[in-house]
Amino acid sequence: MSEFFTVRTPAEAHGLLHQHFAATVRTEHIATADALDRVLAQTITSPQDLPNFVRSTVDGYAVNAADTYGASPGLPAWLTVVGEVPMGQSSTIELHIGDAALVHTGGMLPLGATAVVMVENTQMVDAQSIEVLKPVAAGENLVQIGEDVRTGEPVLAPGRAIRPQDIGALLALGITEITVAQPPRVAILSTGDEVVPPAQAPQPGQVRDINSYTLAALTRRAGGEPILGGIAPDDRAALDEMARQALAQADMLVLSAGSSVSYRDMSVEIIDGLGQPGVLVHGVSVRPGKPTIVAVCNGKPVFGLPGNPVSAMVIFDLLVAPTIQQMLGALTAPQKQVQARLARNVASAAGREDYVQVRLEQRENELWAVPVFGKSNLIYTLVHAQGCIKIPLDAGGIYENEWVTVFLY
Amino acid sequence: MSEFFTVRTPAEAHGLLHQHFAATVRTEHIATADALDRVLAQTITSPQDLPNFVRSTVDGYAVNAADTYGASPGLPAWLTVVGEVPMGQSSTIELHIGDAALVHTGGMLPLGATAVVMVENTQMVDAQSIEVLKPVAAGENLVQIGEDVRTGEPVLAPGRAIRPQDIGALLALGITEITVAQPPRVAILSTGDEVVPPAQAPQPGQVRDINSYTLAALTRRAGGEPILGGIAPDDRAALDEMARQALAQADMLVLSAGSSVSYRDMSVEIIDGLGQPGVLVHGVSVRPGKPTIVAVCNGKPVFGLPGNPVSAMVIFDLLVAPTIQQMLGALTAPQKQVQARLARNVASAAGREDYVQVRLEQRENELWAVPVFGKSNLIYTLVHAQGCIKIPLDAGGIYENEWVTVFLY
Repeated sequence: MSEFFTVRTPAEAHGLLHQHFAATVRTEHIATADALDRVLAQTITSPQDLPNFVRSTVDGYAVNAADTYGASPGLPAWLTVVGEVPMGQSSTIELHIGDAALVHTGGMLPLGATAVVMVENTQMVDAQSIEVLKPVAAGENLVQIGEDVRTGEPVLAPGRAIRPQDIGALLALGITEITVAQPPRVAILSTGDEVVPPAQAPQPGQVRDINSYTLAALTRRAGGEPILGGIAPDDRAALDEMARQALAQADMLVLSAGSSVSYRDMSVEIIDGLGQPGVLVHGVSVRPGKPTIVAVCNGKPVFGLPGNPVSAMVIFDLLVAPTIQQMLGALTAPQKQVQARLARNVASAAGREDYVQVRLEQRENELWAVPVFGKSNLIYTLVHAQGCIKIPLDAGGIYENEWVTVFLY
Repeated sequence: MSEFFTVRTPAEAHGLLHQHFAATVRTEHIATADALDRVLAQTITSPQDLPNFVRSTVDGYAVNAADTYGASPGLPAWLTVVGEVPMGQSSTIELHIGDAALVHTGGMLPLGATAVVMVENTQMVDAQSIEVLKPVAAGENLVQIGEDVRTGEPVLAPGRAIRPQDIGALLALGITEITVAQPPRVAILSTGDEVVPPAQAPQPGQVRDINSYTLAALTRRAGGEPILGGIAPDDRAALDEMARQALAQADMLVLSAGSSVSYRDMSVEIIDGLGQPGVLVHGVSVRPGKPTIVAVCNGKPVFGLPGNPVSAMVIFDLLVAPTIQQMLGALTAPQKQVQARLARNVASAAGREDYVQVRLEQRENELWAVPVFGKSNLIYTLVHAQGCIKIPLDAGGIYENEWVTVFLY
């Protein structure tokens, strides 16, 4: 740790972190049906053609397309109905010139059939014959072998968060088990002599632990497994011991640091002592969230978040969540967002990223983002917010009525 | 059931459903710390002021603001330091005129203090006295009692999906248990002689069950508890019996109906026979998804979804998910979406809502929505899509380059 730290931009903080920390993805094997929102850790290629037989997409008659050419209501094509293809079975029927077979949507085409005539475009003459009123081209009203996916085709890549339709698509190929990333274990430690567990009635001067539980829920959302390390007192030896223990049993440590300057100085020294190379960043140009510590200690990321709940959440989203995603090997998904018009001027300072909490208001046909102003030590600022807007590093603010992107919570 | 059904718009289908089905929310009591993404089923009012003591927001000296008026570097105010407020304790110190007490960020102000001077704006003279270089106004650098939330103030309303920050905010007030909605049980039944379980190797003419598992995952996402009812054969008595059993053990039934016309006719009759008033809608003006059945049977919603996976998912999102949300008493959250430019013309027919699957492509600084064309019976259409766009009932299509809203999966 160098003696003096300069405040870093978020991009510089990311850069330093990536320079000293290379995530390795730990994997496990699970049932595909249980894989919702898990991150795939293998390449899936299709073991088969899907479908693996030619299927009708309509109710009608399987025919040789050529037998229908030129057919019209005035001059229909007469075909002999030689049977019906039962659903879920291959047919023993083989069509010869002038033959047709009744087939249902999703049913298998019999040998010799090249298209399906929709039942609406036929007229039954008697039990053994139909009139076709409209021609079909070869390949019409059917799904070809491998049209959905072909044998050997890569279908899902590592890093994908599994969605409902992906589960269906894997099971359609008979892939009932997959390799996914194990959730990284994130130890969370709250600190401060004034902090008591939520179930305890605080005495004057004490406050309940908010951050442990908010950070645990944020960790779950990001795909990690939170491990609550408890509340460390304002005591160097005790905090050092609890931080070591928490880090030992986890893949990452998040400290919700005490808020006073002397306390922050102590945190940075303790974090720096947890392993090599130690503290990389002390202070980021973000409001709220400036007094942030980023470290890598013997191959594990360690974050010292500001104690204020709003700052802690902003920095979690900015630095911790992306690190969890990296440890999952997750590809970046498009962030959940809406466009809205800003309901009032918001000032910022150039050289600093500002994150402003907003609630959304539908006014006639437009969505408006209304800033929720409140000190960053007020948790209800976050409760009243539905998302936040970002004022970039080089901007001096955003004017009322401008369109902004709201990142939704 | 009237003999003839006319195709309904989605709005009409919602209207008919709401007319015959009034959801009652079943509740349960759970630990607040475990409540992420659950839907609150009570009104939370604050049992206390937060904070319940005056807290400093900086490191500095608690003072009587009047003692600092007019102070400047040239003419500082001299104050006597009478002690330090320890973190997490109420102080026995009482400030008199000309007194100051050392206080840390988050610490409790001593009696008689009306503001805090930041340590940066003071100079230590000796162990007992400081110079104040800048005046503070009363109330400066502190959080008042109840500034975050006041006793009796309503803080969270029923219907809210609990977010990480809400967990923190509840625990800050000592609310360690809350009443939330129980997930509605959604029975899911796949049908068709051609459908086999995913672990089974399909014979020619057979396909694996996709929809049960996709619909189960979609149900979980919407907040419901899926109950897989298995695969019913194309047999009226068997399907009827399985549908009755599935509905009996659940709050809602979702049938992934067979795709052939005769099969759909059978489904509609069986659903109609499950209870009063029976089938309300048979056919909606949506593509894909037209052959949809909506029913209420003895107070439980029943949906017959098209067998094609794309259609089934579109209709689930449009009709089933909102019904699950209603049974949770959930308020509508802003839908997750992005704005993008459409990469090619998409045609539609007036009088029909079209849902077009798209993938997203970043081209320079703009996000583009590229339609993923594919028959609605191809599951990989959904796998390649990152979301969908909606072409409204009265539109004939959307032109290339127009901005569209992409609803993200």
